[in-house]
Amino acid sequence: MPIAAAALALAANAAFADGPYRNPDNKNPRDVGEGTYPIPYKMPTVAEITDSLMRVRDYLDQATPTRVISSKTGQPIANLEKPVADAVVSPAKGDFSFTSYEMGVVHAGLIKARQITGDARFTAMTERHFDFIGRMRPYFKAQQAQFGLEKANSFSRLLAPASLDDSGSMCAAMIRARFAKIGPDLSPVITTCSDWVANKQVRLQDGTLARNRPAAWSLWADDMYMGIPALAETGHLTGERKYFDDAVNNVLNFTKYLYNDKLGIYTHGWNANNPDAPRFYWARANGWAVLSMSDLLDVLPKDHPGYPLVLAQLRKTLKGIAELQSGAGLWHQMLDRSDSYLETSASAIYVYVFAHAINEGWISPTTYGSIAQAGWQGLTTRINARGQVEGTCVGTTFASDQAYYYARPTSADALHGYGPTLLAGAEMIRLLTNPHVKVQYKLRTYHYMPADQLPNYGEHQ
Amino acid sequence: MPIAAAALALAANAAFADGPYRNPDNKNPRDVGEGTYPIPYKMPTVAEITDSLMRVRDYLDQATPTRVISSKTGQPIANLEKPVADAVVSPAKGDFSFTSYEMGVVHAGLIKARQITGDARFTAMTERHFDFIGRMRPYFKAQQAQFGLEKANSFSRLLAPASLDDSGSMCAAMIRARFAKIGPDLSPVITTCSDWVANKQVRLQDGTLARNRPAAWSLWADDMYMGIPALAETGHLTGERKYFDDAVNNVLNFTKYLYNDKLGIYTHGWNANNPDAPRFYWARANGWAVLSMSDLLDVLPKDHPGYPLVLAQLRKTLKGIAELQSGAGLWHQMLDRSDSYLETSASAIYVYVFAHAINEGWISPTTYGSIAQAGWQGLTTRINARGQVEGTCVGTTFASDQAYYYARPTSADALHGYGPTLLAGAEMIRLLTNPHVKVQYKLRTYHYMPADQLPNYGEHQ
Amino acid sequence: MPIAAAALALAANAAFADGPYRNPDNKNPRDVGEGTYPIPYKMPTVAEITDSLMRVRDYLDQATPTRVISSKTGQPIANLEKPVADAVVSPAKGDFSFTSYEMGVVHAGLIKARQITGDARFTAMTERHFDFIGRMRPYFKAQQAQFGLEKANSFSRLLAPASLDDSGSMCAAMIRARFAKIGPDLSPVITTCSDWVANKQVRLQDGTLARNRPAAWSLWADDMYMGIPALAETGHLTGERKYFDDAVNNVLNFTKYLYNDKLGIYTHGWNANNPDAPRFYWARANGWAVLSMSDLLDVLPKDHPGYPLVLAQLRKTLKGIAELQSGAGLWHQMLDRSDSYLETSASAIYVYVFAHAINEGWISPTTYGSIAQAGWQGLTTRINARGQVEGTCVGTTFASDQAYYYARPTSADALHGYGPTLLAGAEMIRLLTNPHVKVQYKLRTYHYMPADQLPNYGEHQ
Repeated sequence: MPIAAAALALAANAAFADGPYRNPDNKNPRDVGEGTYPIPYKMPTVAEITDSLMRVRDYLDQATPTRVISSKTGQPIANLEKPVADAVVSPAKGDFSFTSYEMGVVHAGLIKARQITGDARFTAMTERHFDFIGRMRPYFKAQQAQFGLEKANSFSRLLAPASLDDSGSMCAAMIRARFAKIGPDLSPVITTCSDWVANKQVRLQDGTLARNRPAAWSLWADDMYMGIPALAETGHLTGERKYFDDAVNNVLNFTKYLYNDKLGIYTHGWNANNPDAPRFYWARANGWAVLSMSDLLDVLPKDHPGYPLVLAQLRKTLKGIAELQSGAGLWHQMLDRSDSYLETSASAIYVYVFAHAINEGWISPTTYGSIAQAGWQGLTTRINARGQVEGTCVGTTFASDQAYYYARPTSADALHGYGPTLLAGAEMIRLLTNPHVKVQYKLRTYHYMPADQLPNYGEHQ
Repeated sequence: MPIAAAALALAANAAFADGPYRNPDNKNPRDVGEGTYPIPYKMPTVAEITDSLMRVRDYLDQATPTRVISSKTGQPIANLEKPVADAVVSPAKGDFSFTSYEMGVVHAGLIKARQITGDARFTAMTERHFDFIGRMRPYFKAQQAQFGLEKANSFSRLLAPASLDDSGSMCAAMIRARFAKIGPDLSPVITTCSDWVANKQVRLQDGTLARNRPAAWSLWADDMYMGIPALAETGHLTGERKYFDDAVNNVLNFTKYLYNDKLGIYTHGWNANNPDAPRFYWARANGWAVLSMSDLLDVLPKDHPGYPLVLAQLRKTLKGIAELQSGAGLWHQMLDRSDSYLETSASAIYVYVFAHAINEGWISPTTYGSIAQAGWQGLTTRINARGQVEGTCVGTTFASDQAYYYARPTSADALHGYGPTLLAGAEMIRLLTNPHVKVQYKLRTYHYMPADQLPNYGEHQ
Repeated sequence: MPIAAAALALAANAAFADGPYRNPDNKNPRDVGEGTYPIPYKMPTVAEITDSLMRVRDYLDQATPTRVISSKTGQPIANLEKPVADAVVSPAKGDFSFTSYEMGVVHAGLIKARQITGDARFTAMTERHFDFIGRMRPYFKAQQAQFGLEKANSFSRLLAPASLDDSGSMCAAMIRARFAKIGPDLSPVITTCSDWVANKQVRLQDGTLARNRPAAWSLWADDMYMGIPALAETGHLTGERKYFDDAVNNVLNFTKYLYNDKLGIYTHGWNANNPDAPRFYWARANGWAVLSMSDLLDVLPKDHPGYPLVLAQLRKTLKGIAELQSGAGLWHQMLDRSDSYLETSASAIYVYVFAHAINEGWISPTTYGSIAQAGWQGLTTRINARGQVEGTCVGTTFASDQAYYYARPTSADALHGYGPTLLAGAEMIRLLTNPHVKVQYKLRTYHYMPADQLPNYGEHQ
């Protein structure tokens, strides 16, 4: 590793500076068979995870004001009856936009945390945001009609989505909130964003969701998440099978174009004019891929012919990702490159999907439980005392050279890490309290077992 | 690499701190075509290797007392006619138990060193241990009958083996000693341990040697060594073909379940309820795999139908392992992960099997000789002045996450490194004195050649 | 990475010590989406590249005297009418021999630079060398006839080549100079060296160019370059199809023996007695492989049946190499090993072939343009103020262990890096001025696009 790259890697991993850690579950302080770890390798408790989640929730809550202000004066707009051109939603810290796809993942995480813990404080923020959206949408719609601000309108993505990033993730979150009876009736917003995904986004002739950047007829693995969960939840909401068909078709098509069967992971992107291009295994894109499949399976009818196909593809990809886990529990920015930095958001998505897939019975606790646990414990080193999630790669385009991907900076202001961390922690709580799973601490490591298949350690050792 | 992991790696490689080394076989000190090495890259001499082996032998000899003492007083038991409950074999330093499978490998190494060097000092320790076993077995059998101490009985593994670890390695070593006329007649012990391996260990329905930990119907690549050499030597001893059939069948079955044909190496473990689990290429387990095949081929009749199959599988695996050798001659704890530490015991097993396979004519010196040499020279940095073998991963269970494997501590008290180092050095002596192999030092590197196929450097360079 | 190896790697990458670099094409100094790079990641300008090339040219020019001196006195030989035994060509710095294969690549680079820039200063050095060769060949031929000095004769390679290294690269360069009307008529030299490649070098029965070192019937991937371009240019010169057939046959045969289809790269060497040996993916050898294919395609008639086969093989290999580019733009000494150092000469060859293949329309700018750019920008850190090219692996034999390859020293005196750097820079200038390629700087990275296929960034981001 060149000096500069090494320096970057060290900086990006500064959160590990507290280590090395000795496993406190080993009660023999003089056990020579015990080493030290770069992360707190141990069994997490529900209380610890809950505490982490609550810190993250609190940070997000205070960092995301839902107020209308004047972009000129910075002062609140008092009269919200009549639109004015300078009315904007008060900007959040970092890239924490209340309409961004990353915020859709945050709401998904908050809803999941509430469902698993029963604690309504998690979704208080979702309620606040969604109430605001429902309440202020007419105002900004009128502003748009009167002043034609286009993207400068704070509600532009919700009023007139123009991309999958604008529409899919928030759409799925709003439908989930509706099923969970959280927030107001957002039907008009849901209809608009769902319509974009289902009917307006550019597609390949075979129906695969596409973009015309950075080149014509480009596919982005990210778009599996930007599109498939919205299609799936729209199917869930409407009961119309065509949405499930579309979602399944997209899983299979993206897999056909982007999946490397030898490595078990997805290349970041592809375009139809250069089908045999070099591949870049960007970690977060693989996160979006497995999260989209997991989200689809959550609502796809089990008798849908696509169900076993999607499940099989999810299993294969989780195996591929599992085999690339680093020795520090997290995963590398470039999944197959151990000299690239350890990245938080992708790692958090993986931990969620591993834990969720175990809890749903899609994969075995025996082989994946300790992977999820090590991943979560790695993540704990990235959640700081203020509730910020550190070490997340900032927004990243589909590029064509490793130098770009390796050098993407990380930031606690990158919202991409927050929703996945909420999802991961919530599902880890569910795993630790799953009555069908027993965890044995044996020979200094953890064996997650089906509760009815406990092993026999009765031999000499 | 995170800071902490880097620190660990540095610590684990502290033995390299004396480098970098310049190759002393290059007599031109100003040759700009010569670089420096992290290990003493050079041609070893028989005297150097013999000296290393003797140091290791001496250390082991003094570290493994064969005395019966009182566990209460620590004093020798004077009267060995009548068993007392507190009689134990004086514990050795580290995990150097005289009945452990690791000690079986030590005896294999000592016997090999004597065979190759003709120096009976190597097997003096084996004689002492085996005499003790033969002499004291009745005493501890009586202790067991009278007091029922089970595992607390120092001879428990030999009296009543309950696992492959208890039986296979020592069984093979005792049969080899018998053929070499070293030590007393240990027939009762041989019969007991051979019977466990052949008839009592749990197996899959197809006969593969299995365990019920960490999950039901688990296979451990380690068990190729814990079982196959014992079966092979029992066939060797009894002349009964069924033992060879069983050994061959186990090579082929373990390979079917654990071998990754793309990488050419074995995953550590597998269980029947999760056949498609993520794979962990732990180095030492791959060592046991190739050592088991090599040991089998040593005694398997050449006309056995399994002979070419086992030989082909050994060759494929040695190619896979060779391709993963590090730039420092040794191999990584996780064979396919260059950011995991360099591990001694696995490296030593590989060096032995490479050298042995060349000497037996199973693989070519042309392509494997310098690999064995670089591996041995790497090992020399791990043998300290006291004869301790450093840098060996301690006992390690079949786990399910990389964090565990990466963080296994290394210790000079881990006996696993000693037997393989003796084997490796002994077989390197045989290689250096092999009349069918010539070594040419040309263009700053080493070319091991069949003595009748020397190359032509007569062109301009 | 062991301490010593880490230290070596740091030393080898010392040219990066000026970094990290922030991309100056991003005009927003506070953009949190911008990171830093170990290399000056930016779009190069024609002026910058030209300046680098001119520095390299100047250094080479002054470092390669073409004078005849007495090896005894060091003084110029005044009377060049009558040969004397001590007449030698004044030795150059480093290994910059005027008859070496590396110098053939230098001339290829100088000719290319002149063709692309139109600046005759580049080929002034070629003219000087080739004039000297044409002028002094009779003298040294007479010296040889009279004194029989063999290899001690400074013109030995040209008078009586005895290997591909002696003949192929210079042969191809001289034919190219002839087509470009640079230098005198060197027909006798061309005939001699072409004859060696086409008719005298040892070959496998199927016609593959071979060597008898380090083992009988060895193939070296390097020899693709040492032979194929000479054969191709001889076909170009004579119009005789048999030379093209031979060149194509060699591409396909070397590929059959050395190419790993899974990784998309070539192993360094192979020998017929050990066809299934461990593989070593030495970077520069892969450079010679792709350069030979590129050079062949430059002159191979498009209707030759081998044309699509060679083109397909070049494309596959470029994809493989592209996927192994490091995060610092350069490539590793062992292509598949991120803990081996970043090597200049191989990186330079790759940059040339990527850029050339784009410019020729063999591969797409969309997927390879930014790879070439990042590679070139990495190379700029290796061209020092004096015009030396640093970080090039010295001459390296076909060896059999990773320790050797990892520890090869690098030197600015290794001529292997100079010709490739000239080729790379020249072809980058052609790429930057290619009317069919547009470069868009978008979202902090570079998108090389066919000029008629620009993308659409009109969506929300």
